[in-house]
Amino acid sequence: MSGTDHAKDTGWGGPQPVFVLVEPQMGENIGGAARAMWNFGLEHMRLVNPRDGWPNPKATAMASGAARVLDKVGVTQTTADALSDMNFTFATTARSRDLTKPVMTPERAMEHARALIGQGQKVAVMFGPERSGLANDDIVQANALISVPVNPAFASLNLAQCVLLTAYEWRRQGDATPPEVVELAGTDFAETIEVQKLLERMESALHDVNFFWPEHKAESMILTLRNMMSRMPLTQADVRTFHGIIKALGKNKD
Amino acid sequence: MSGTDHAKDTGWGGPQPVFVLVEPQMGENIGGAARAMWNFGLEHMRLVNPRDGWPNPKATAMASGAARVLDKVGVTQTTADALSDMNFTFATTARSRDLTKPVMTPERAMEHARALIGQGQKVAVMFGPERSGLANDDIVQANALISVPVNPAFASLNLAQCVLLTAYEWRRQGDATPPEVVELAGTDFAETIEVQKLLERMESALHDVNFFWPEHKAESMILTLRNMMSRMPLTQADVRTFHGIIKALGKNKD
Repeated sequence: MSGTDHAKDTGWGGPQPVFVLVEPQMGENIGGAARAMWNFGLEHMRLVNPRDGWPNPKATAMASGAARVLDKVGVTQTTADALSDMNFTFATTARSRDLTKPVMTPERAMEHARALIGQGQKVAVMFGPERSGLANDDIVQANALISVPVNPAFASLNLAQCVLLTAYEWRRQGDATPPEVVELAGTDFAETIEVQKLLERMESALHDVNFFWPEHKAESMILTLRNMMSRMPLTQADVRTFHGIIKALGKNKD
Repeated sequence: MSGTDHAKDTGWGGPQPVFVLVEPQMGENIGGAARAMWNFGLEHMRLVNPRDGWPNPKATAMASGAARVLDKVGVTQTTADALSDMNFTFATTARSRDLTKPVMTPERAMEHARALIGQGQKVAVMFGPERSGLANDDIVQANALISVPVNPAFASLNLAQCVLLTAYEWRRQGDATPPEVVELAGTDFAETIEVQKLLERMESALHDVNFFWPEHKAESMILTLRNMMSRMPLTQADVRTFHGIIKALGKNKD
């Protein structure tokens, strides 16, 4: 292999694993795999002996937008050549084989890949041909297997989907996206004083229409109302909306 | 909605979220979404106003093997009807919208979904039409958004892929698969005594051919050899293979 795709030049997230498609058949699937990879920022693909040769116009058409992955794809005749400069190789395959080998979930595998790559090692993930999957001749060249824990009653991931899930796992584990944020549309969270003033107005308006009745339940009704409002993460826009509602309903009553 | 798909009757993993496809266009994509779901054991799908009506032969053809998902799909005219019996709804959508709403990663969202479902609540995940995605009219009916952290330079997940990743996350978090095992092909791990005996034989054979030379380096060479062999997780079959190699090489020498 040439030294150009050694997985050290990407912007989004640093060094990456190389994805190796072994004897892929349909150009569309090569393009689909490229799209799946690039969705999660992976751009180093190698092809071993693609059935319809290379370049493949159908792959290019399908990859549109992820062309950069195909532009620098490496093509070899044998799996051994594709893996020659790697330090560690995963093979994605169904679980039961007649070879003794470590089997990892995608989660554990990409955790291990990140650890290895963090030490400066070069890591490959192999994917087999669409119909048959990887042959034992290829599997023996891998250090470990990746097995996606699919429904035992229905295991039907296609090539691009298997690439997608592996790429997703790689990205997920290095992702800095906060797990949960509130997207604020042109407003900010209300301050407590704003919620307090809203409650005062609400209680006053409700008091005027004898909402807090019977008398001996008034205290707990007010508590419930205050608790409800404080449970909501109100924005300043929400507070204004409630003020408007109270005003409008008060007018209608007259 | 009828009471038949209340997500409490599945075998693989107990109660589940309901996936709601809003105004899906292509039957093939409905079938592809069903396959993606069933790969991870999800079987409760609802359709809101599918463009080409229902049933749809193209959906059925594409879903082959995941027919059970389509067999009991629920179809409604409006999003409100599809969600009416739910307690919490996620909407999958690109991030930037003009609505204030919590935004979660798929990981966090499915963690939250598991917590809610664990409390007996009913949870839906909405997916928009292929081209346009969910409209604001639908998004306002969701309690929170799910945003997949894709490559900002290339966000191009299709409907079935978005369904696949969400279903994968649901499954991953409830999955009991051990992260890493060694698949043993008709053998067992060697016991230390077997490795020790192999080393003795190896050292003896190497000693006979003056491998440990020069003399003052012999001790560290033996240490290195022993360390190498103990670093490998050798099986009983591996030990036999090494014995055979040593025997064969010894013979050749004569």
